[in-house]
Amino acid sequence: MHSDNMLRPFFAPEGVMIVGARRSPGFGFSIPTSLIKQGWGDRIYLVNPVGGELHGKKVYESVSEVPDPVDLAIVIVPSPAAPGVLEDIGTRGVKCVILETAGFAEIGEQGMALQKEVEEISKRHGIRIIGPNCVGVVNTDNSFASVETLEEALEPGPVSVIAQSGMFGTGILDFAYERGLYISKVITLGNRMDVDECEVMNYLSGDPTTKAIMMYLESASNGPRLLETLDRVTREKPVLILKSGRTSEGKKATESHTGSLSGEDEIYEGAFAQHGAVRAENIEELMAYSAVFSTQPLPAGNRLGIVTSSGSMGVMSTDTAVSHGLDVPAPSAATIEKIKKDAPGWMNVKNPLDTGPSQLYGASVAAALQDPNFDMVMAITIIPYAVVQEFKANGIPPEVWFGDMKKLRESAPDKPFVICSMGNSRFVKEIREIAGPSTPVIFSPNLAAKSLAALWDYARRKKRRD
Amino acid sequence: MHSDNMLRPFFAPEGVMIVGARRSPGFGFSIPTSLIKQGWGDRIYLVNPVGGELHGKKVYESVSEVPDPVDLAIVIVPSPAAPGVLEDIGTRGVKCVILETAGFAEIGEQGMALQKEVEEISKRHGIRIIGPNCVGVVNTDNSFASVETLEEALEPGPVSVIAQSGMFGTGILDFAYERGLYISKVITLGNRMDVDECEVMNYLSGDPTTKAIMMYLESASNGPRLLETLDRVTREKPVLILKSGRTSEGKKATESHTGSLSGEDEIYEGAFAQHGAVRAENIEELMAYSAVFSTQPLPAGNRLGIVTSSGSMGVMSTDTAVSHGLDVPAPSAATIEKIKKDAPGWMNVKNPLDTGPSQLYGASVAAALQDPNFDMVMAITIIPYAVVQEFKANGIPPEVWFGDMKKLRESAPDKPFVICSMGNSRFVKEIREIAGPSTPVIFSPNLAAKSLAALWDYARRKKRRD
Repeated sequence: MHSDNMLRPFFAPEGVMIVGARRSPGFGFSIPTSLIKQGWGDRIYLVNPVGGELHGKKVYESVSEVPDPVDLAIVIVPSPAAPGVLEDIGTRGVKCVILETAGFAEIGEQGMALQKEVEEISKRHGIRIIGPNCVGVVNTDNSFASVETLEEALEPGPVSVIAQSGMFGTGILDFAYERGLYISKVITLGNRMDVDECEVMNYLSGDPTTKAIMMYLESASNGPRLLETLDRVTREKPVLILKSGRTSEGKKATESHTGSLSGEDEIYEGAFAQHGAVRAENIEELMAYSAVFSTQPLPAGNRLGIVTSSGSMGVMSTDTAVSHGLDVPAPSAATIEKIKKDAPGWMNVKNPLDTGPSQLYGASVAAALQDPNFDMVMAITIIPYAVVQEFKANGIPPEVWFGDMKKLRESAPDKPFVICSMGNSRFVKEIREIAGPSTPVIFSPNLAAKSLAALWDYARRKKRRD
Repeated sequence: MHSDNMLRPFFAPEGVMIVGARRSPGFGFSIPTSLIKQGWGDRIYLVNPVGGELHGKKVYESVSEVPDPVDLAIVIVPSPAAPGVLEDIGTRGVKCVILETAGFAEIGEQGMALQKEVEEISKRHGIRIIGPNCVGVVNTDNSFASVETLEEALEPGPVSVIAQSGMFGTGILDFAYERGLYISKVITLGNRMDVDECEVMNYLSGDPTTKAIMMYLESASNGPRLLETLDRVTREKPVLILKSGRTSEGKKATESHTGSLSGEDEIYEGAFAQHGAVRAENIEELMAYSAVFSTQPLPAGNRLGIVTSSGSMGVMSTDTAVSHGLDVPAPSAATIEKIKKDAPGWMNVKNPLDTGPSQLYGASVAAALQDPNFDMVMAITIIPYAVVQEFKANGIPPEVWFGDMKKLRESAPDKPFVICSMGNSRFVKEIREIAGPSTPVIFSPNLAAKSLAALWDYARRKKRRD
């Protein structure tokens, strides 16, 4: 069977057994209730030797008793029980297992031996395993999650997440949606006994709802294969990588007193770029880049037009953009003429174009998007929220002050367009609603400008490779 | 009169006239309603030649009619009317003016001439001016604000803001409180015709509620004086500076195609450090640094202890800390013994100390704060919010899982202590409530680690200068 089809039950199972379903609060306790809430109640089966009932569902005393159809097992038993459970699952004929239990290779020799034992059993039965020491997968397409998640976080979106760390993968779900970043799938890999980042990247490369892949790695499962996979997958979709210290929990960083990047890290840096990946330096960058790369077209050049309601934010964005390889050239004569016609005396028509309280913000963004001097446009939408409240009280909707962002986005489909909106959370939320899902709204001018610079760098490298 | 006393009416006026109070929505429209809401209704006087009534208050037709006491004028008339108004204010005997109107030096020659005219009038009358082209001041001590602000933003705090840009200064008020950063005073300087950053720094240096000063500059009003002032003020209080391009709105950055720092910028960089200031590279850093510098003691050394509920965040923080000059050494034997006693088999007792779901998080933070191997402690509090909700449903309050942060903070008053909490906004808010105002809660592990590194760097430099 093709690898992609083999992984399918992890994301869209027909039936799921939860082995080690627990009665007391603690790790994994509410996986069943979460799944029931998401509409999976009639497709999950709880297994625990004590039997009885839990969350209103029968508890099977053994894996062998679970009725068909079931093609995925979520295992949360204590680690010493794992080999026996895997043996039962293999005998039962289930081929996909999310082994969430910790206490394997990550804790040293004894755990390593246990992991080897589980690996041997799985191979013998032809079982594919995600984990151990992970929280498995989330798929917003069908609201399937092998981990407790907020309902709000399951709103479908264009970005899929591959994370070595369980907390990273599902942690992001908790706040990504609050920042306008919506997720398609999350896969937490844990110790990568079997399924690794390469296989998952391949799967996501063929997944229609995934438009960009964000990845958190502490090490490569297999260096050459990772680069070969990146090389292939990045021809289809952008891959954004946050690579931190080693799996042994920052051991290297802890031991290092020099503060310099390790040689290994420099090799990663170069190799990622050469093989088409985009590296982010921290979570904030990773999220901003993902929002931009998953929604925006690639720019034809590096010329950025900035329209801003705040002079200082325009200056800061220009600083960042220029120091990261973008050009911030003057607007075309036609744009200057168009804006000057209606502009008050105090308004300088240049780039960045600071519209201040001129009420020309929307018209200026429209002109910038049509300007042949700009390959991409950043619109900085900042205004004291007390003033917004006053506009509202006077019946003036934000669209009047900031333009119809959705129409603006559509007016120049080939130019990347990013909104920067730094302000009260209620304001940013309103701007996100006006902008809609096709235009990322990024809080920080620094991150907005960096994201566009990264997009240009990616476009240029892609062109060379094509 | 001493300069500090001369500036006092800007922050704590006895009576305020608002000259150019307007009837239609637009710049400055709701300054009076804002002030009335904040309890200043009986100390404000509206002036506009059309007279009548506005916001339930009498409108005086001229400045000369305004009754005593009045020691501050907020001027929002169109720029051509400014000279006449300033003449009237001088004659009326008012010595402090916030000139918010734009259209002066920032728009070129014509505006420059107008600004000179206003300057000459003010000097002749001995008037002190903040502005023009600004939004003046905010003082949370007495809820006085010369600009529309959210009521929630007026919760008093330890950080004062000096900003060349109006939008920067008041923009920050809109979201700082949502991030746990509370403000004492904001001063937006605009074109700095008279009052400049140096004079304000001096004032704030003697202000008891200001514990740290954050400053946004596009240029120095007077380079040598700025450095001399920094040198003096930073012996009292930390000054955090975000310095961006020039006032001429990113002109230099716009023209530059090299992406390198300008020579001038490098001079600033070195001079700020030499004269005791701390430079932040962007708004996110500026805010995180301000939160830490305004609340934490200075560390005795560079040894950071990290306790985390998420392995990956521990690794990332270690990477950042080490590459910014901190050491992340092993815990003392006593700490290791203390934790190991209760730790499950899978838990590695080292630094960073990843407690996972061991329920040893609070005890580990307590041990780290007492550990003589650590000069400062970072506690990374990350957990899926769905799990938190489950704890709550089972009657387990967050204090049980994360320790009593307020007591922990008090247990080691000489060690900087920072909480990193990346997650759903409701979760972060709850952690802020548990932590209280003495411990900053920073969203990003990257910014939390960078802030502590900046604090150590500052402490080391301060020691050398003392």
